[in-house]
Amino acid sequence: MSGGVPAAPAAGAQAEADRVAEFTAFRKRMNERILGEDNQVVRRFFALDTQTYKPGALDLRTKEMLGLVASMVLRCDDCISYHVAQCKEAGVTREEMFEVFSVGLVVGGSIVIPHLRRAVDFLDRLEGGEASAPAGHDHG
Amino acid sequence: MSGGVPAAPAAGAQAEADRVAEFTAFRKRMNERILGEDNQVVRRFFALDTQTYKPGALDLRTKEMLGLVASMVLRCDDCISYHVAQCKEAGVTREEMFEVFSVGLVVGGSIVIPHLRRAVDFLDRLEGGEASAPAGHDHG
Amino acid sequence: MSGGVPAAPAAGAQAEADRVAEFTAFRKRMNERILGEDNQVVRRFFALDTQTYKPGALDLRTKEMLGLVASMVLRCDDCISYHVAQCKEAGVTREEMFEVFSVGLVVGGSIVIPHLRRAVDFLDRLEGGEASAPAGHDHG
Amino acid sequence: MSGGVPAAPAAGAQAEADRVAEFTAFRKRMNERILGEDNQVVRRFFALDTQTYKPGALDLRTKEMLGLVASMVLRCDDCISYHVAQCKEAGVTREEMFEVFSVGLVVGGSIVIPHLRRAVDFLDRLEGGEASAPAGHDHG
Amino acid sequence: MSGGVPAAPAAGAQAEADRVAEFTAFRKRMNERILGEDNQVVRRFFALDTQTYKPGALDLRTKEMLGLVASMVLRCDDCISYHVAQCKEAGVTREEMFEVFSVGLVVGGSIVIPHLRRAVDFLDRLEGGEASAPAGHDHG
Amino acid sequence: MSGGVPAAPAAGAQAEADRVAEFTAFRKRMNERILGEDNQVVRRFFALDTQTYKPGALDLRTKEMLGLVASMVLRCDDCISYHVAQCKEAGVTREEMFEVFSVGLVVGGSIVIPHLRRAVDFLDRLEGGEASAPAGHDHG
Repeated sequence: MSGGVPAAPAAGAQAEADRVAEFTAFRKRMNERILGEDNQVVRRFFALDTQTYKPGALDLRTKEMLGLVASMVLRCDDCISYHVAQCKEAGVTREEMFEVFSVGLVVGGSIVIPHLRRAVDFLDRLEGGEASAPAGHDHG
Repeated sequence: MSGGVPAAPAAGAQAEADRVAEFTAFRKRMNERILGEDNQVVRRFFALDTQTYKPGALDLRTKEMLGLVASMVLRCDDCISYHVAQCKEAGVTREEMFEVFSVGLVVGGSIVIPHLRRAVDFLDRLEGGEASAPAGHDHG
Repeated sequence: MSGGVPAAPAAGAQAEADRVAEFTAFRKRMNERILGEDNQVVRRFFALDTQTYKPGALDLRTKEMLGLVASMVLRCDDCISYHVAQCKEAGVTREEMFEVFSVGLVVGGSIVIPHLRRAVDFLDRLEGGEASAPAGHDHG
Repeated sequence: MSGGVPAAPAAGAQAEADRVAEFTAFRKRMNERILGEDNQVVRRFFALDTQTYKPGALDLRTKEMLGLVASMVLRCDDCISYHVAQCKEAGVTREEMFEVFSVGLVVGGSIVIPHLRRAVDFLDRLEGGEASAPAGHDHG
Repeated sequence: MSGGVPAAPAAGAQAEADRVAEFTAFRKRMNERILGEDNQVVRRFFALDTQTYKPGALDLRTKEMLGLVASMVLRCDDCISYHVAQCKEAGVTREEMFEVFSVGLVVGGSIVIPHLRRAVDFLDRLEGGEASAPAGHDHG
Repeated sequence: MSGGVPAAPAAGAQAEADRVAEFTAFRKRMNERILGEDNQVVRRFFALDTQTYKPGALDLRTKEMLGLVASMVLRCDDCISYHVAQCKEAGVTREEMFEVFSVGLVVGGSIVIPHLRRAVDFLDRLEGGEASAPAGHDHG
């Protein structure tokens, strides 16, 4: 179901993998730093963000796809990567992921294209084992 | 599953029903007017918009929920009403609809609240038979 | 401190006053309707929204001005009117309000101008006693 | 060059014409009210906004088309109507206007469609003599 | 017509030139990867995006300036760089480019300034021969 | 008042400090380059941007906090860093800064979280002496 064009072995794949690992560590460190601050509104917002994606009337898969398309039309690369990883973890196939992308692209317009390129690159890396999903909900 | 507060019989319910009918007629008339224009890019965009929501790897229900949450975080009332109607038509329950709203609200923030109010009002009217879904895909 | 041009006695001032009263009733009714729904994420978001503007390290006045400028650059008329009313209630003067507007205008650009016009019109009505602030926090 | 579907004689055309006239009066009145206020940043912003569209290296026509497409992707109806009127005044043809619309639609996505419908409706009214361009630059 | 301040010979000009070349390669590779995927909506969107900028009632120059200002107010660096390059290719002068920038800045506000800095930097590099336009339409 | 979790001594703190210094130099160089261009609208916009934050009816502190929350909901990292530095310079405490962040987060939603992480990281660096405020107003 994946495309016919194989992902070219990226020049700098190692550098990119390092960059992803560095970002994951940064996200984890800063989330702890933020939650360590004595601001109850911010803490509650983070708790609410986690609760939002728990299975309910809609299952996790659907909720993560909703989070992905919302991140895409709002054009936030970190959020897109995060939800791409969560979607894959939840069993969303590449073909389904591209249908989510297509809704995001048509609703949000060509301004979404640069983010789509980075989303597909990230998905390729996930599938190639170069990147990994965060353990548990990690706030975009 | 619906809330305990019954929708107050709206003062001006008839006026509102008229307003919805008027908007539906306006949308239909202007879509024809736009498609009657000799601009191929615009026409193709409208065709592509219709194609986007056709069932594929994802079913219609899921795609309409994706369209709804995207419209919500981008804060477009007409688009929200449209996808609420399409979701209901596709069998999305009120409880599921509120979970879509919750994702939109948390991703998009309190700036989404005025649109949420209008979305719930529109959903109430749909359920009360005062408003109806457009026949077929009708471009938001 | 207000401008030299008096607000022209609006044709349809009564109609406009009615429209504001109608909107206030709609907001109240829909907020109850939304909170009556059994969706915990949405309810918690509303509670968090209320908590956000409680005095803390920053006083109410400052927080309401922050809410106002954020609403302005995000261009949400309902939110702007709401925070204009809350600011006035908290003692923000007209001159100060215009400085908030000036930050919103310069950061957000000329696309903010139509919202500025409606904000000033609403402020004029508030000062003229035609519109009033909601009793307590009422979610934009 | 216009489309084959004639604009249906709108039910409520008179009501709509009244609404346009009322808006034009509101814009004029509020602009005066805003400029009458003793806030130099706001006044200078308005002056700068006027200066922006003066012919320079680019002619008025081109600048107004730039203002139109920017208003369209930012989805501000008042700004769109304003620049549609200015474009027509500057000699932009209906066919050219639709090409501006097509760029706005493709860059900004389907979320632009409701604004496109209102833009075309406004253009139809302008061409039918029901609406008119403001006299001179009038800040969106 | 260019400004009096010469572009300081950038520390790291080579590094920056490498970065631009790397981005161009990334864009090309990912576009192929995306178009290689079996998703017709995405493919058609890319085709439509290309078609949008073909000369019609408006010439290429004007259409590229429209794409540039739209990208600027939506604040997408990749899209801005792309259209700056296409504009230059189409014969838009530096003076005209700055008038496009001025419309984007006034409509979009000071939030556009960081993107303006990067746009001017990119334009400087283009004029200095350090960066180059993509061969043919390449989707932002 | 700061959180209990000490900022981990960042791997690459030196690299990051270099990156901040490089960005500050870039901003300064490009601002000069832009102001050196013969475009009066752009120059006047920059002058107006500076004037906006001068103390008036509201003091500098309040105006910088307004600039910060506006930058946060519009999600511009450069602008956020700039106003964080200006706020600190104007005496805004860390606890107050987090209350500004909380308003930005609740109004703007979870899409703001990645920017919040970078804002807190930047604030940590400022407090640790690794980054510094620009000398005088420097346009985001």
